[in-house]
Amino acid sequence: MNRRYVHGYDERESIRLQDQASSVLELLHSDTRYPAGSSVLEAGCGTGAQTVTLARNNPDARFTSVDLSKISLEEAKKRVAAAGLSNVQFRQEDIFALPFAPASFDHVFICFLLEHLARPLDALRALQKVLKPGGTITVFEGDHGSTYFHPDNELAHRAVRCLVELQKLAGGNANIGRELYPLLREAGYGEVHVSPRMVYVDASKPKLVDSFTRKTFAAMIDGVREPAVQAGMMSAQDFDAGIRALHRAAEDDGVFCYTFFKAVALRETKS
Amino acid sequence: MNRRYVHGYDERESIRLQDQASSVLELLHSDTRYPAGSSVLEAGCGTGAQTVTLARNNPDARFTSVDLSKISLEEAKKRVAAAGLSNVQFRQEDIFALPFAPASFDHVFICFLLEHLARPLDALRALQKVLKPGGTITVFEGDHGSTYFHPDNELAHRAVRCLVELQKLAGGNANIGRELYPLLREAGYGEVHVSPRMVYVDASKPKLVDSFTRKTFAAMIDGVREPAVQAGMMSAQDFDAGIRALHRAAEDDGVFCYTFFKAVALRETKS
Repeated sequence: MNRRYVHGYDERESIRLQDQASSVLELLHSDTRYPAGSSVLEAGCGTGAQTVTLARNNPDARFTSVDLSKISLEEAKKRVAAAGLSNVQFRQEDIFALPFAPASFDHVFICFLLEHLARPLDALRALQKVLKPGGTITVFEGDHGSTYFHPDNELAHRAVRCLVELQKLAGGNANIGRELYPLLREAGYGEVHVSPRMVYVDASKPKLVDSFTRKTFAAMIDGVREPAVQAGMMSAQDFDAGIRALHRAAEDDGVFCYTFFKAVALRETKS
Repeated sequence: MNRRYVHGYDERESIRLQDQASSVLELLHSDTRYPAGSSVLEAGCGTGAQTVTLARNNPDARFTSVDLSKISLEEAKKRVAAAGLSNVQFRQEDIFALPFAPASFDHVFICFLLEHLARPLDALRALQKVLKPGGTITVFEGDHGSTYFHPDNELAHRAVRCLVELQKLAGGNANIGRELYPLLREAGYGEVHVSPRMVYVDASKPKLVDSFTRKTFAAMIDGVREPAVQAGMMSAQDFDAGIRALHRAAEDDGVFCYTFFKAVALRETKS
């Protein structure tokens, strides 16, 4: 499996993930609550963009947050400490070789993880093993193919597709949000429920225009400018025009649309 | 203005609109309620697919439902009569030359109308004139550019774009849903609030798979097969493969996504 992380691990990316978590926080976490005393595995916690909110919203649950990247984990630890939270234990682990006993956790939570994996089904199966029968898995993923905007612009769509292609070359799938239902079913989970969370942004929501359209989405696409141009996917000129078109959609008469998908499923007791 | 109606007026289309209204009925009408005694203009009622629900959900409001097509109005009258409703008056009128006095109506309702007009802004302005200051306009439109599905398929996307192109040639805009905010603002309405209504369909919702993915969306695209092929937009073979791919998304491991946009805005009292 190719483990290159398409967004990179630099500071700008860290800010972007933070912005993303802030602006879609409500969308994701508003209905993610765990009972007191639950043990929850957060697999692929990255720099802890979701961990802080998870731990704060569920003060009586215990989180075990794992990631492959030591650098990301250091950042995550700092964030959680800065938030004054003490219900998170961090561990550097590979989700394909988790050291936990079968049925160790009451619940599993993953966010923006499957999109980066060449074998998302195997990951879901590996996570199912450490989940107690009757426990839930919560999955949150984006889908770059859900992106559209006004004014429409073909170069902007092509720039978005550069990220999709680069992520594919790195072994991932940036359009995986729409696939959560069949993936979870095929991995053997039961009672799969998928709930799309569309981010609709117009000028009546100036904070979201800034935090999501500009600083999350356009910034994320702009972040692959160099590899996209170097791979000959687009000329620098066309790519920059595409980015300008995304910013154009953030103006007063512009509109931007993107959809995240949240899925919740059960490890069935009979399995 | 080109007044060709891209879907045609045949029986199959009538069934499609009915299916569409049934499957997205809840999405559209669940929060569309008018106070007792209100006078509501439904502009472009077509064959009455929405009229029956509007009139039933608002038994103490009085509807004036107008359309340019006498044939559609006859069908609409039959439907409303069959439903035992008596709070709808039908009139054959041109929305660009409405015979009503200024500020005649408490509210205006339009659904799947703007997408067919070459001058949607002028239509919104014309409707504003007959709306009382402080009254609302409710607008419901689809956006074919919001369509995506799993498994993904380029020929299916091309077939969808054939309808978008044909509608453009007929003077319309099949991707108008995302533009409701700037259109209503530019037309002079106040307090514009746009609420996307995404239709997400997977195998856990078999009725919606059948009524929406197959009988509404795939059927609508298939409905432009002949003009699309005759215009040289796609070969018949490619178009049919695209339609099969849309039906493939209706299978047990398939997913289909489409978004309608609902907007509510005010005629401001100062205007």
